[in-house]
Parts: sequence; structure tokens; C-alpha cells
Amino acid sequence: MSKFFSDKYKNLIPYVPGEQPKIGKIVKLNTNESPFPPSKTAIKIASEKAESLNLYSDPELSELTALTAKTLDVKKEQVIMTNGSDEILNFLFMAYCDEKTPAIFPNISYGFYKVFAEINNLPYKEIPLREDFSVAVDDYINENGTVFIANPNAPTGIYLPLNEIERLVSSNPNRIVVIDEAYIDFGGESAVKLLDKYDNLVVTQTFSKSRSMAGARLGFGVASKEIISDLMSIKYSTNPYNVNSMTAGAGIGALTDDEYFKQNCKKIIENREWTKNRLNELGFETLPSKANFLFAKNDKISGKTLYEKLKERGVLVRHFDKERIKEYNRITIGSHEQMQIFIDSVKSILES
Amino acid sequence: MSKFFSDKYKNLIPYVPGEQPKIGKIVKLNTNESPFPPSKTAIKIASEKAESLNLYSDPELSELTALTAKTLDVKKEQVIMTNGSDEILNFLFMAYCDEKTPAIFPNISYGFYKVFAEINNLPYKEIPLREDFSVAVDDYINENGTVFIANPNAPTGIYLPLNEIERLVSSNPNRIVVIDEAYIDFGGESAVKLLDKYDNLVVTQTFSKSRSMAGARLGFGVASKEIISDLMSIKYSTNPYNVNSMTAGAGIGALTDDEYFKQNCKKIIENREWTKNRLNELGFETLPSKANFLFAKNDKISGKTLYEKLKERGVLVRHFDKERIKEYNRITIGSHEQMQIFIDSVKSILES
Repeated sequence: MSKFFSDKYKNLIPYVPGEQPKIGKIVKLNTNESPFPPSKTAIKIASEKAESLNLYSDPELSELTALTAKTLDVKKEQVIMTNGSDEILNFLFMAYCDEKTPAIFPNISYGFYKVFAEINNLPYKEIPLREDFSVAVDDYINENGTVFIANPNAPTGIYLPLNEIERLVSSNPNRIVVIDEAYIDFGGESAVKLLDKYDNLVVTQTFSKSRSMAGARLGFGVASKEIISDLMSIKYSTNPYNVNSMTAGAGIGALTDDEYFKQNCKKIIENREWTKNRLNELGFETLPSKANFLFAKNDKISGKTLYEKLKERGVLVRHFDKERIKEYNRITIGSHEQMQIFIDSVKSILES
Repeated sequence: MSKFFSDKYKNLIPYVPGEQPKIGKIVKLNTNESPFPPSKTAIKIASEKAESLNLYSDPELSELTALTAKTLDVKKEQVIMTNGSDEILNFLFMAYCDEKTPAIFPNISYGFYKVFAEINNLPYKEIPLREDFSVAVDDYINENGTVFIANPNAPTGIYLPLNEIERLVSSNPNRIVVIDEAYIDFGGESAVKLLDKYDNLVVTQTFSKSRSMAGARLGFGVASKEIISDLMSIKYSTNPYNVNSMTAGAGIGALTDDEYFKQNCKKIIENREWTKNRLNELGFETLPSKANFLFAKNDKISGKTLYEKLKERGVLVRHFDKERIKEYNRITIGSHEQMQIFIDSVKSILES
């Protein structure tokens, strides 16, 4: 830290992304990436766009925004595209939290929520998950503030049914509820369909997981056009050209190639259920997941030891050294071949 | 604006980027883009990276950072790569300004400085340029706060010599001076060479102009490793994967292809001087520019009228409807062919 760093950040603890190993052959099941390459159409358009990088990207991202809106069956004025969904989440903390309006989120969820609150010097309250790791909607209903719920939740994978989301959103029309749907395409039902009825709902999604575009950085927010207008003010006050032209092109390609997207989601769901059954056969307890990962523990081995022994064998999963969840590991669902290697490695560790 | 928008942003006036016309054939000289395509190596690497977008980009951007550092002859711990130079500038306002430390910048400069101060709720002070539009270093020396100087300045193009920058930086070692060198490659000398002597200096640059990568969004900051460490904390607290893998690849390609970069800068300088001479012959007053644009006025026609009449003829320049500079237009330097069309259009407007 330099002597010049503003006091307001002196205690800041940044988010720590999953490891990105640079070495050789590894089965990488630690950052919820898709095992499938991006759509061929996405690759093609992105490569074409590379040839005219000397020109600025369209700050309005008109074509991509219109296509995203069409895919979601909303108006284009209801959509804002961002540099990953981290950017839209940061914008939402900025726009809808302040000294009078704390951020409220589960104490076990996407680790970045707390960091967004800290970096923006915002008050926040973490609400414990139930004993079974599900979100207890009743605990949020009488809280004052802007609510952030990842659905399915991370790192548990547990999905909160849409009627529960609606109960939360409708309970107080005077406060914003953000549903972070990074993992919605792996078996959940999106809250986008509730937007017609509620102007205090914001839904965020990403192209990173289900559309195989983690490396492109593309996310978006969907809400009333008034809310999108607020968020556009923030975009134009921080980084008007937030999404580069290759990424915008890849996004258009990915949305066009809908069949490939659906196929990949189906495969991930199949691989998840296969992996879950194998883990259960090996004595694991797995939480019910609607995401592209499983959260699992086994009383015969500590979470940390399993993580380390898998790493020794070239299989990387994610372990969180945190109260209540330290006996678990989060296992991204990859290709069938990768999951076979993972299961074989787990077996060999348990037998040794 | 929604009823939910935090009061802290109720008076926010976002930055307005130059027009990005979507229609047909236009001579686009309004956003300081390069008329030359990106390096072939940049296109090639970016396209290759498009094939593995399913994997996250390297959050450390190791290869790109190391190559940028090598190009600048600094250590890699002295460099942070960002999503355009707008992102590094925003990080600098966040990190080094607060209630006790206002931002200080010229009243005619990159219009975004004021917006960065506003969005972060920071106090700021604008210091008038001299009568000849140059920066008066003496006016900054006794001011308390973090100084932001664009060098060459925008939209004037006027360059502040390095000994003047050094006088500013050395005058107070207890405060940060940021030199925003977006346009440095068109004839100025970079302040990066002063970093060995001063730990309160930060230099920012961009790949947008001289490296033909505006559409890719790539910028960077160079400073002491302690300052870079502060800025990394902010990156990891807002958007750890801020630069996507295609852009990182294009950046590596652009830096590799140094000869192409130098050639293009040389051509722009030649075209600038050619255009300047033609404008002077037509009775314009042009400010001395070391950037890839000219700032010019002509007593025979108002700045706004010239802008509008050029637009009618399919030539887009940038006009700022602002006190002291509203009689001027900012003309990006394009290819020789584009500048010929521009000059012909100006002639025909003046004669009509």
C-alpha cells in the first residue's frame, strides 16, 4: 500500500478469484467455466470485429442490446449490457444503496457482494441462510434496504422457486430486489417474467457460464426502463465504452446460436446429475443444485484435505475456508470425461 | 430516473461521448480514432483467443503486463492494465481523492475528469488555462490535492514539456500528480522516464489511439509498485477480470508489432502538419498540437456553423458548446485521403 492511498480504503479486502493455473494439463473445475467452446458464430463475429478495432465500439451497444431484449422478451430500454455481471452488480450497489439504504444479502452467497459494499463505503447486513442452506425469504421481508439474492445461490447451487422470489419482491414495492441469475440456465426459471408486474425488481445475468463466454466479459441487467436509465447514468459516468466491440460481436453470435446454447445447458445438467449420483454413492452429501456446480462434503475426509489431494492429482476444485462451509468443496460441472476423471480421483483418494 | 435512485447521484451529469453515426459513408474525424486498422498480429492473436472464450481471462494479465512493462522499460509490478484508460482514471480518482484531498485539473481538459469527481462524490477544483490555452504549472504548485493533467491536453492538443511536468511533480512529494498521456505518441515525450525519481507520479496511457485499438478497450497506469498495489486492490474490488482475453491478446500483438506502430504515428504527424498548413492558408487559427487532432477556429465562420455545415457534407468533427472554446472545432487526424476531403469541404463551405 502506498502512503497516498485514501483512508477510506485502508481496510479494504478485495475479492479473491479462483486460481488460474498457468501450467500444463489440469482438470479445471474451480471457476464454473463451461467445458464447451463458444458458439462458432460467436467466434466468427468476434474475429471479424477484430479487424476494425481502430474504431470505438458503439457505446449504446444497440444491436446486442436489442437482441438480448428480444431473447428475454422485454423492451430494449429494459436492458443494460456490462463488462461481465460484476460491473452491473457494482452499478446496482452504487445506484440503490446509500447511508439510509443498506445492502442486504445472505451470509453465504457470492463473496463479491460484501466487497462491492465495502468499496462503495456502503452499510450492509448479512442474513444467515437456514440450517439446510436455503434462503429464508421471511428474514428479508421486514428489513429496510436493497436485497441481493443469487438464484441459484453460490456456492451452494440451491435454487429459490419463483413464487418465493415473487413473495419477496411484492412484499415491499418501495425497495429494490436484485436477483443475480448467473446460473439460471442450468435448471431454474428466470425472474425476468416478473418484470411486467414489479418495477422494484432487477435481474442480472451473464454470458460467462451457459454461453461459454467467461473470457469475453459480458453481463447484463434487466429492469424497468427508469431503472435502466439510472444505470446508464452510472455507465456514462464511469466507462461509456464498457463493452468492447469483439465481445459485443461474440454476444450477438452466442444469442443467434440458440440451439448450441440449449444443447450445452442440457449436457451440463446431465453431467451434474451423473456426478451427483456418483458422489452420493461414495458417501458424499451433496446440496440440491440447479447450477453448473455441486457443493459436496464427505464425513470421511475434510474439505480442505480433499481439495489438496485433488490438486496433487491435477484436479482443481474450489474450497472456501469459511465457517459453516469449510467441509465442502464446490465442483464445477465440466465435460463427461472431466467428471469421470474427477470421480476416479475422488475414489482413489478415499481408498488411499 | 427511477424513484429508487440514490440521492447522491440525483444531480449527476454523465460524460457524453462523440457521436457514433450508424449510417453509410462518413468521414469520421470526431473521436480521435486511428484511420489505420490494428496490427495484423493483434488481429491474429485476438481471433485465436476468441476460440477459448469459455475460459476466464487471466485476472493478473501476466503476459500483457510484462510486455507493456518491457516496452516502457519499467518493472512489471509498476504496471496495471485496465478496461480503457477511463477505467484507470476512475481508479485514480477513487484511490487518491477524498474529502481532504480534492481533485485538481484544468478547466479545459478531458471532460471526464469532472464526471469522475462527481460520480465518486469528490471535491474538485478546476484551474483556468492561460490565455493561450497552455497549462500554467505555477497555478497548481500551492494547491492541496491530487492533480490530473492531460499531456498533450485535450481538446487543445497543446503539449507541456517534460521539464514543466517535473517541476510540478517535484514541487510537492506528498501529493499525487497524474499525467494522462492518451495522445503522447504523436510527438510528445512520456513522463514515464521520471518514475525512477518520483514516487508521487502516475502516468496513464491507452492503446486506443496510436495503437489503433479504440474498439478493444485497453489502457494502463504506470507508477511505483506501491501505487500499483493500491490500484490492484481497487481492481480486485470492482472487476477482477476487467480486461477480456481477446483484448489482452490484441494488446500483446500490438506491442509486438512495433514497426507498424511507429509508421502509423509518423503518418499521423505528417497528416497533422499538412492539414494544419492547409487550415492556416484558409485563414484558420490552429493551436500548436502534439496530438492526433487539431483545434482550430476561423473568424469568418462560427465554430458551430462550421461543424454543422461539415456534417451536412458527411464530415464529422467535434464541437464543444462551451465558454472560451465554442468558436473552435476539434478535428481528428485521419488518413491523407480523409484530410483532403475535409480540407476540400472546408474550402467549399468558406466559399459558399
